Amino acid sequence: MNSFGRIFKISIFGESHGINVGAVIDGCPAGIHLTEDELEPDLARRRAGAKGTTPRKESDIPRIVSGTYNGRTTGAPITILFENNNTRSKDYSKLWEHPRPGHSDWVAKEKFGGFNDPRGGGHFSARITLGMVSAGVIAKKILEGSDFSAQVIEAGGNADVQAALDSAIAEHDSIGGLIECKCSNLPVGLGEPFFDSAESMISHLVFSIPAVKGIEFGSGFEAAKMRGSEHNDPIIDETGKTATNNAAGVNGGITNGNDIIFRLAIKPTSSIDKKQETYNFANNRIETLSIGGRHDVCVALRAPVIVEAAAAIALADLSLIEQTSSRVAGD
Amino acid sequence: MNSFGRIFKISIFGESHGINVGAVIDGCPAGIHLTEDELEPDLARRRAGAKGTTPRKESDIPRIVSGTYNGRTTGAPITILFENNNTRSKDYSKLWEHPRPGHSDWVAKEKFGGFNDPRGGGHFSARITLGMVSAGVIAKKILEGSDFSAQVIEAGGNADVQAALDSAIAEHDSIGGLIECKCSNLPVGLGEPFFDSAESMISHLVFSIPAVKGIEFGSGFEAAKMRGSEHNDPIIDETGKTATNNAAGVNGGITNGNDIIFRLAIKPTSSIDKKQETYNFANNRIETLSIGGRHDVCVALRAPVIVEAAAAIALADLSLIEQTSSRVAGD
Amino acid sequence: MNSFGRIFKISIFGESHGINVGAVIDGCPAGIHLTEDELEPDLARRRAGAKGTTPRKESDIPRIVSGTYNGRTTGAPITILFENNNTRSKDYSKLWEHPRPGHSDWVAKEKFGGFNDPRGGGHFSARITLGMVSAGVIAKKILEGSDFSAQVIEAGGNADVQAALDSAIAEHDSIGGLIECKCSNLPVGLGEPFFDSAESMISHLVFSIPAVKGIEFGSGFEAAKMRGSEHNDPIIDETGKTATNNAAGVNGGITNGNDIIFRLAIKPTSSIDKKQETYNFANNRIETLSIGGRHDVCVALRAPVIVEAAAAIALADLSLIEQTSSRVAGD
Amino acid sequence: MNSFGRIFKISIFGESHGINVGAVIDGCPAGIHLTEDELEPDLARRRAGAKGTTPRKESDIPRIVSGTYNGRTTGAPITILFENNNTRSKDYSKLWEHPRPGHSDWVAKEKFGGFNDPRGGGHFSARITLGMVSAGVIAKKILEGSDFSAQVIEAGGNADVQAALDSAIAEHDSIGGLIECKCSNLPVGLGEPFFDSAESMISHLVFSIPAVKGIEFGSGFEAAKMRGSEHNDPIIDETGKTATNNAAGVNGGITNGNDIIFRLAIKPTSSIDKKQETYNFANNRIETLSIGGRHDVCVALRAPVIVEAAAAIALADLSLIEQTSSRVAGD
Repeated sequence: MNSFGRIFKISIFGESHGINVGAVIDGCPAGIHLTEDELEPDLARRRAGAKGTTPRKESDIPRIVSGTYNGRTTGAPITILFENNNTRSKDYSKLWEHPRPGHSDWVAKEKFGGFNDPRGGGHFSARITLGMVSAGVIAKKILEGSDFSAQVIEAGGNADVQAALDSAIAEHDSIGGLIECKCSNLPVGLGEPFFDSAESMISHLVFSIPAVKGIEFGSGFEAAKMRGSEHNDPIIDETGKTATNNAAGVNGGITNGNDIIFRLAIKPTSSIDKKQETYNFANNRIETLSIGGRHDVCVALRAPVIVEAAAAIALADLSLIEQTSSRVAGD
Repeated sequence: MNSFGRIFKISIFGESHGINVGAVIDGCPAGIHLTEDELEPDLARRRAGAKGTTPRKESDIPRIVSGTYNGRTTGAPITILFENNNTRSKDYSKLWEHPRPGHSDWVAKEKFGGFNDPRGGGHFSARITLGMVSAGVIAKKILEGSDFSAQVIEAGGNADVQAALDSAIAEHDSIGGLIECKCSNLPVGLGEPFFDSAESMISHLVFSIPAVKGIEFGSGFEAAKMRGSEHNDPIIDETGKTATNNAAGVNGGITNGNDIIFRLAIKPTSSIDKKQETYNFANNRIETLSIGGRHDVCVALRAPVIVEAAAAIALADLSLIEQTSSRVAGD
Repeated sequence: MNSFGRIFKISIFGESHGINVGAVIDGCPAGIHLTEDELEPDLARRRAGAKGTTPRKESDIPRIVSGTYNGRTTGAPITILFENNNTRSKDYSKLWEHPRPGHSDWVAKEKFGGFNDPRGGGHFSARITLGMVSAGVIAKKILEGSDFSAQVIEAGGNADVQAALDSAIAEHDSIGGLIECKCSNLPVGLGEPFFDSAESMISHLVFSIPAVKGIEFGSGFEAAKMRGSEHNDPIIDETGKTATNNAAGVNGGITNGNDIIFRLAIKPTSSIDKKQETYNFANNRIETLSIGGRHDVCVALRAPVIVEAAAAIALADLSLIEQTSSRVAGD
Repeated sequence: MNSFGRIFKISIFGESHGINVGAVIDGCPAGIHLTEDELEPDLARRRAGAKGTTPRKESDIPRIVSGTYNGRTTGAPITILFENNNTRSKDYSKLWEHPRPGHSDWVAKEKFGGFNDPRGGGHFSARITLGMVSAGVIAKKILEGSDFSAQVIEAGGNADVQAALDSAIAEHDSIGGLIECKCSNLPVGLGEPFFDSAESMISHLVFSIPAVKGIEFGSGFEAAKMRGSEHNDPIIDETGKTATNNAAGVNGGITNGNDIIFRLAIKPTSSIDKKQETYNFANNRIETLSIGGRHDVCVALRAPVIVEAAAAIALADLSLIEQTSSRVAGD
C-alpha cells in the first residue's frame, strides 16, 4: 500500500507520464517553517543532469497546495505536487509482449491484470520518489539538530566513480553503486523493540526505493565473522558515547545517541541499450531485445538524497511516537 | 509498537522472566487445520540444546487459548501462550549501574524511565520470538504449497560451524553467523511498489529479530559492482522463470514466481563471559565488567526458523492483501 | 488523522481558501471504469445553489491526476484535485479574538497553537468533504450491484422542508435536519465482530462529516423501549431475508443481506447572521458578535450525498477485507 | 479486525466457552500503577448478579501476564487474561439449522464458512468486553484527572428500571435500555477534524459493544429540530466554558474542555424464552423456536462500565496522539 508511518504519515501517488506525482504528509506538527524554496536543495540533488544520469530533464518544481499558511505548517495534511512535463509518447504494448529483463514490466501486468499504466514505468517509476524527498525535507525539520548525510562511495565496485561511469557508458551498459548514509546527533530512545526497531523502519522505507538489493547497519555483514569481544561497543562516558560503533547507534532496536551509519547496494539500471536475449510472450520464443528511451547509467548517483529522506522519515515518525511513550507517571 | 501486518496481523507480548510470552494472530482465514502439535516442529528448531546454545532449557509448550475450534481456525483471533519456567532471580540493579556493552540495558532504561522489566532482558529478550515462530507456522499454512527453508551457512566467518563454535567456547567468547533463507513456489504478484515491497515487508520483520545487522536479497551487495547486462535476469519461459535469479524473485517490489533468496548477518551475542571495560554510571568510571548468566555462544544457530517465520508472515499478509487488489472489473 | 481504511484507504487534504482540496484513494482494485464525468453527478448533489444553501458558488470540477489510464483504475493510488476559486479575503484575526460560538474557531487555535489556517474554516471546512464524495463514487463502483440512497426527511423538525427554510431565512437564523440513508443489495458477511462492525465503520466516517450529532441504525433509539419479542427480526427464507428489519441489516456487526438503514441528526449551521452574545478574548468580556460571510441556512441539504459516500467507503473497505477472510481451507 | 487505536492500541481475543478471553494493550506509557486489584472495581460493575442479569456467574479474575513490573507499567504490551469457567456444553448444531432471530448465529456461519466457534456465541459473546473494560481502567489512568460516569437512565422506556425488569421477567421476554455517559475534566484539543473526530473514535468503539443501536452527543437528535441561535453554545469565560452544552464538549471534532455527554440505545437481548417463529434451514420451513440457556433480561444493565471504557480508550488514544501534534516550533 502506498502509505507509511504511524503518526508522521506519508502517502505517495503518481505515474511517470501521468499529470502529477506527489505526496500527502499527515501528522506534521504545526508551526514549522515550510516553503517551496526550502524543498529545492534536496530536490536539486535528486535531479538528473550530471554524467551518468538520464537525459530526460524535469524541472521538478514543487507546489505546496495544502497544509501551510504564512510559510508555516498548520497541523493539517501537507500536499506537494509535481508536474510531469518532459514525457515522450511511444508504443508501450511492446513491453507487454517482450518485457524488459530485470524490470517490473511483467509483474506489473500480471498483478494488475494489464490495467497498470505502462508509460515510463507508470507508478513503478523512480519519479515517485519526488514525494519521498519532499517528505524527507519536512522530516529533517522535525528532527531539528540532527544531521543526515548520504553519498555514493563506489560505482561498479570502483571508488573512482567517474572512471566507472565512463567505462559503462562506453559499453552501452549500466552499473550498480554503493551508498553510505550517516545520521548524527539523534536523541536517545527512538525505536521500539518489536516490530518497529529503528533498523526495521529505515529498511522498510529504503527497500521501497527502486533498485536497492541490500542494507547493512554498522558492522553489517562483517558482524557475522566477528567475536562478541570485538563487536561490543564499550560505553565511555555518561552520555552513552561508545568507543567503537559496530552497533551503528542502535541497541535492541532503539537509538543510543551514537551515529546511525548504514550502507546499501543499488543494482545497475535494468534498462540498457545493450542487446539482451529474453522471452517474447507474443510468439513464445526467446528473442533479442533492444531498449530505446532515456535512462540513467547509474541510478545510484541520484539516490543519496532519497536514502537520507527514507532515514529521516522513519526517524521522524519514531520521534513523534517516542513523545507519547516517554511520559512517566509521578507517584 | 508491538504489532505488524495489515490483514494478517500479529501482536506479540511478554518478558523473559514474566508469566507468559505469546502472540495474538488476527486476520487468519477460517478453516485452517491448527493444533498445538503442529506448532511443535518449528518450536523445536528454535529451542536451545545443541552445542553453542544457552544452557537455559525451556520446554516452550504452546497453548492455543482462542481462535480454534475442533482443530481448525475459526476466523477469530488466535492467541498462543507460553510459560516462562526456567528463570533465575538475581540482582538486576547492577545492569543499570554498569550496563553490558552491545546490549539494550542502557537504552531500555533511558527510554522507559527505569520502569522496564530488566530481568533476563525483559521485553527485549529473544524469548519474544516464540510468538513469531508460532505465527510463522500459521503463515506457512496460509501460503500452502510454498516452501521456506533457512539455515546457518557460516559462523564466525567459517563454513565449518562446529569448528567455529569450539574455538569461541574455548575463549569464553561469542561469534556471529550468516543465515540464508529460500522461499520457493510463491505466487506471482505479492507486494506493492510503494511502500510495501516484498523486500520492505520481509526486512521490516527480519530487523525486529534481535542481533540482525544486515540483509541482502539475491545478488545483494555484489549488485553494486555489477553491470546491467550481467545483472538482468532473462525470462526463459511463459511462467516467468528466469535463467539467473539476481533479482531474488522480486521485481519492482513484486514477486515474480522465482525463489526469494536472502541472506542476513547475525552479530555475536553481546553477553559474554570474557571481561570487558565499559562505563560504570554508579561511579562515573570505565571499569571491568564480568557477566554471569546463561547465554548462547552463537545466537545465529537458533535463528533460522525465526527468519523463515519473518518471511512467511510478511508474504502471508501480502498474499491476503493481493486477494483484494486482484479483482479486475469486467467490461 | 486524515486517513481512513484498511485496504480501501482514503486520505483527504485541503483548506477552504487554500489552493486545492482533494483526496488520495489507495487500495482500489484495477480495471474499474473511472473518468471525471462519472464523478460529476454526486458532486452536483453536494454543490450549493438551491434555496437554503450558501451563495458561495464553486464549480468543483474534479481533476484525476493519478491512478487511472485509458479511463480505468490502474491499481495505483487515485488522486483527485479540486481548485478553490470563489474565495474572499477578509480579516480573520477577529475570529481568534471573538470566536464564533458552536464553531471550531477556538479549539482549532488552541490545538494548533494559532498556526492553523483560519480562512473560511481552513481544514475544518465542509469543502474537505469533496474528497469524501469523490471516494464515495469509487466505493459505490467497488460495491457494484448495491444501492445507496440518502435524503433529508426533516428540517427544523418539519417534514415540509421548504417551509422550514423560509421561516429560518426570515429570521436570519439556521436550522438542523434529519437525514435517512438506505443501503440495499449488500452481500452477506461484511463487517467484523470487534472492533470493525459495519455500524462502527459507518459511524466513524459519518461523525467526521461536520455537524453530525447523532446516528441510529434500524430501530435505533426506539430499541431502548422495545421487548426482544418485538425487536427480533424473524428470518423468512433461505436467503436470510427477515420479516421486519429492526436490526437494519446487521447482526453482531456483520451484514445479513437486508437493507442497512440509518438516520442521522445534523445540527443547525453555527454561522448565523443573527447577533449572539459570546466571550471576547481580546478584552475578556462577553460581547455581541455579528457574523458576515456566506453560509448555508441548513447544511443538512447538501449532506445526503456525503452520507452515502461515508457508508459506501466503509462498506467497500469491509468488502475488500472480507475477500481475504472468506477463504476456507479444504480438507 | 480485532484491534483498535493508533498509539494506545487494544487487541482483544477469546470465545465465550473457550479457554481464555482477554486483551493485549500496547502503547501504554511506562510508570503507571497497575495491579489486578485495580481492575476489580470496574470488572465488578460489569459482572452479572443483579436482577435482570444472566444466572451464569463468572468470577472474572484478571491475570496480568505481561507488561507490568513491581506494580507499574513497563512500556511493553500489557496482556490480561480471564478464564472461562462456568460453561455448559450443549448441542449447538441446532443453531445453525434454526438460527435465533436477532442473533449473529446465521451471519457468523455464513461469514466463516461454518468454522466459527458456536458455543455461547463464540467470539461474538459479550464476554469479549472483559478485555475492553480492563483496557478502560488503564485508559482512565492515562487520562488522570478526567472522570467517566455512565448509567442506565431508562429500561423498556421506563425510568423506573426495576419495574420495567419485573414486567419483562414476568413475560419471559427481554427489554432494551438507554444509557448516558458523561466524561468530565478533559483537556482541550483532543481529536482530529478528519477522520478521527472525538465523536468518530468514541462511536467506533461504542458500536462494537454488542446490542448498541444508536448514539447521540449533546443535543443529539434534538439538534435536527433546532435553530442555530438556540444550538450555539456561547463561551462565557477564558477557559472556553460554555453557557449551554449542546455541542457536548466537542467542536469540529475536537474537545473544548466542556463535558462530553452522550446517550446510547441498547436493544433488548435477542435470546428470549418466549417462543418465536423463524426460518429453519434444515427443512426450509418457518417454525417455532424456543431458546434455553442463561441470558440477561436487559443487557443494558451491565453495559455502563463498558461504555465508559469505550470512551476512555478512544480519548486516551487521542490524548497520546495530541502530545505528538502539539509541538510548535520556535522561531
